[in-house]
Amino acid sequence: MPTANASPCRVTIWNEFIHERSNADVKKIYRDGIHVALQSSIESQLGNLVEVHCATLDEPEHGLTDEVLATTDVMLWWGHAGHDQVSDEVVAKVHQKVLGGMGLIVLHSGHGSKVFQRLMGTGCMLRWREAGEVERLWITAPGHPILSGIEGDYVELPETEMYGEHFDIPEPDELLLISWFEGGEVFRSGCTFRRGQGKIFYFRPGHETYPIYYDPRVGRILANAVLWARRQDGSYTHDARHIPEPLNPIR
Amino acid sequence: MPTANASPCRVTIWNEFIHERSNADVKKIYRDGIHVALQSSIESQLGNLVEVHCATLDEPEHGLTDEVLATTDVMLWWGHAGHDQVSDEVVAKVHQKVLGGMGLIVLHSGHGSKVFQRLMGTGCMLRWREAGEVERLWITAPGHPILSGIEGDYVELPETEMYGEHFDIPEPDELLLISWFEGGEVFRSGCTFRRGQGKIFYFRPGHETYPIYYDPRVGRILANAVLWARRQDGSYTHDARHIPEPLNPIR
Amino acid sequence: MPTANASPCRVTIWNEFIHERSNADVKKIYRDGIHVALQSSIESQLGNLVEVHCATLDEPEHGLTDEVLATTDVMLWWGHAGHDQVSDEVVAKVHQKVLGGMGLIVLHSGHGSKVFQRLMGTGCMLRWREAGEVERLWITAPGHPILSGIEGDYVELPETEMYGEHFDIPEPDELLLISWFEGGEVFRSGCTFRRGQGKIFYFRPGHETYPIYYDPRVGRILANAVLWARRQDGSYTHDARHIPEPLNPIR
Amino acid sequence: MPTANASPCRVTIWNEFIHERSNADVKKIYRDGIHVALQSSIESQLGNLVEVHCATLDEPEHGLTDEVLATTDVMLWWGHAGHDQVSDEVVAKVHQKVLGGMGLIVLHSGHGSKVFQRLMGTGCMLRWREAGEVERLWITAPGHPILSGIEGDYVELPETEMYGEHFDIPEPDELLLISWFEGGEVFRSGCTFRRGQGKIFYFRPGHETYPIYYDPRVGRILANAVLWARRQDGSYTHDARHIPEPLNPIR
Repeated sequence: MPTANASPCRVTIWNEFIHERSNADVKKIYRDGIHVALQSSIESQLGNLVEVHCATLDEPEHGLTDEVLATTDVMLWWGHAGHDQVSDEVVAKVHQKVLGGMGLIVLHSGHGSKVFQRLMGTGCMLRWREAGEVERLWITAPGHPILSGIEGDYVELPETEMYGEHFDIPEPDELLLISWFEGGEVFRSGCTFRRGQGKIFYFRPGHETYPIYYDPRVGRILANAVLWARRQDGSYTHDARHIPEPLNPIR
Repeated sequence: MPTANASPCRVTIWNEFIHERSNADVKKIYRDGIHVALQSSIESQLGNLVEVHCATLDEPEHGLTDEVLATTDVMLWWGHAGHDQVSDEVVAKVHQKVLGGMGLIVLHSGHGSKVFQRLMGTGCMLRWREAGEVERLWITAPGHPILSGIEGDYVELPETEMYGEHFDIPEPDELLLISWFEGGEVFRSGCTFRRGQGKIFYFRPGHETYPIYYDPRVGRILANAVLWARRQDGSYTHDARHIPEPLNPIR
Repeated sequence: MPTANASPCRVTIWNEFIHERSNADVKKIYRDGIHVALQSSIESQLGNLVEVHCATLDEPEHGLTDEVLATTDVMLWWGHAGHDQVSDEVVAKVHQKVLGGMGLIVLHSGHGSKVFQRLMGTGCMLRWREAGEVERLWITAPGHPILSGIEGDYVELPETEMYGEHFDIPEPDELLLISWFEGGEVFRSGCTFRRGQGKIFYFRPGHETYPIYYDPRVGRILANAVLWARRQDGSYTHDARHIPEPLNPIR
Repeated sequence: MPTANASPCRVTIWNEFIHERSNADVKKIYRDGIHVALQSSIESQLGNLVEVHCATLDEPEHGLTDEVLATTDVMLWWGHAGHDQVSDEVVAKVHQKVLGGMGLIVLHSGHGSKVFQRLMGTGCMLRWREAGEVERLWITAPGHPILSGIEGDYVELPETEMYGEHFDIPEPDELLLISWFEGGEVFRSGCTFRRGQGKIFYFRPGHETYPIYYDPRVGRILANAVLWARRQDGSYTHDARHIPEPLNPIR
């Protein structure tokens, strides 16, 4: 009987945690770090369906030790100023974990992270502007579990950083949200991808200078995404494998 | 908090129920009908996570009254000899229900049903041979929830009807299973599609003259598919809608 | 040697041709009909690479006789007020021709045509507003042949009818263009689909009260789409086919 | 007017060229190297539509100098024993060229090349067996330009190395061919992907110990793929770009 979901989903929120300590404006919004705001939001949405753990750049191995990786079902990734400081060794491990079934939710400026670029195989670059403009995220996949509970045709955010197309990613498996920006651009803001056994969700909203991760609709989407992306059972191997004996006779 | 899944998933199994009453060989395998075998399999897999109901061709409105349709979260469809006997009115209602969010699992010869053809927009035809040959369903999407709990790289069935490419369907959203047939053909045997708000899973295995729906791995896949396809919450409308007032000012 | 493209591509432009004869404002813009403007645009772009033919609703069989259909490599479809007047028999023939390899370019309000709905399997509805607002079509697939020769990141149109999401179509095979509208909405305005052997391109721009089909960038995209969608060689059949003899021995 | 295709398509065939010089059996089949057999095949199919150039591992910069890369519209890649000998610097350049619009055709054991893995973002591993078995490539996308001119429902090769699923790649944009192997496996043997502005075709057939690249149907598919993948015009940039001034006023 399908019972894999009976135990809590083990979530690791990774945050570079730089802006919140170096910039007074950011500190006002995310005093304890973006990761703590995210943790609080996800826990309030999902209660004991999840066990949430945080990790940051300046910890040993960026807080992503083998033990942490082995016990993570879904990882959230927030990075911006410190992309280059993430060690290639940790990136390689996270990449392998996703291919092995760990879910990954990449947030906002995480588009430029090494791990997202490695998973996508493209540059993942985009246009941007920081002008506090209105963003309206239109739903293009009503009925998708990641959008469960979101009322209406769109989610509007009053003040945002703009991200504009072209967003250099592979064609998403599913496109869930397209953003309209007051200043004239559009963006594919909610995209799903499967890579290996892992499920990936890129979600655009969020920025260190806007309190977007306190928005309950944003929180609901992230909570839905956690449940959607959670690791499935199984110990599948992606190694090359020699099968010397045919399953059926060869003439 | 995401709680939509707390109530049982309401499943309707539709079977034309013709071969089992007219053909002695079929009767030996599926004495009470394919639908009863499917019901038993799904209930044994999912217990009180589901409430299963059956409907057949010769009931009034083929058993698919407005009330039944309004209370179905996922429908399974098995048809073969009676595709043409299904009324266009019922087909139109089922089609609309899928677009409105009802899950649909189309089984084996259901590829030729009116409702699948209408949802796909293509002819959905294929090559076939009934020679009791080995079929081996290879997993192309390890980690997909529909394949949860399936061990190994493939599922082998000892005696099957062959379906061969080209299978005239749109490119699936996700291709989960490809069949190898002893006689020399291949087939895309597990395919997902989203249409409107509804999730669709086409699953090839099954035939009236082979006891395939008693296979526990087949049962597991179908049970997983029921959970995957279940209707999400929401009262989204797909009607055209006039929005005379702009959300932002037009110069 | 691949030489299929040596002969001209045979194009049929279908227009219901209603607004241009009944509405004085429309007549001013498209005096001889939208089809004639489209023909002129495509011929000026493609010269002797194409042979363009037109057909309209009020002709016998809507101008789409068996002979016309048999000699069409790519069809363009413009309809709006007369969708319901198109006979089901003609729709069924066009649908079959697309599955058999004829390219189809569906323009603007053609989203509501019977033939597009039948090919998509969904309702194809959307939100709309006629307020003469700016539309900016952002390129999401740079390098796609349909966008060849289009400079910059977007195409801007000064006055348009708005179409907004959710657009109830299957996930496109390729999403080429997303529109931003001044009034606050977004739309998937350039979408490709393969169905059977046929290639389909939905292109949003155009309306009977705006001179959009005179825009050379719009003309270039349509000309590119004609070349992209043109029928390939081959006499493939989509019929069900019984293969009684296995290609390989069955034990 | 679309005229980009008037000039010849500049093709570079890259071959590691190891087996053909170190193994007598291979030398018998591909005496001058697999690249020369491929060049001959493509030139005989496409004549003066192409200008073909070859490059090999042991040349300076593996023959892939900046000048060669700047003048290549489509690259074919054959590697096997020497994947690890390809320098990371050259891999990075080829990767960037593909994102910038160069077509890439990855052949057979090229699935394990660094450049393919980097573009896919996954491990690209598979199962294999070298037993000289029959392979039958079934067409799943009739009407696709890469399959133009291929008669019938499949291409059969009498003696091949087996590649079996799971093939660890992202879901292809288009799946054109599925292989059946005599020994019991299946494989997605013809897959297209767009990455950045570049078009990629993975084509399974070929092996150093079977004369598969002399098969005219294989040659036809490769020639079609060259035309399909050729670079489009345009000087698009994938760099991140700051757009300080909004296109529309922000309140």
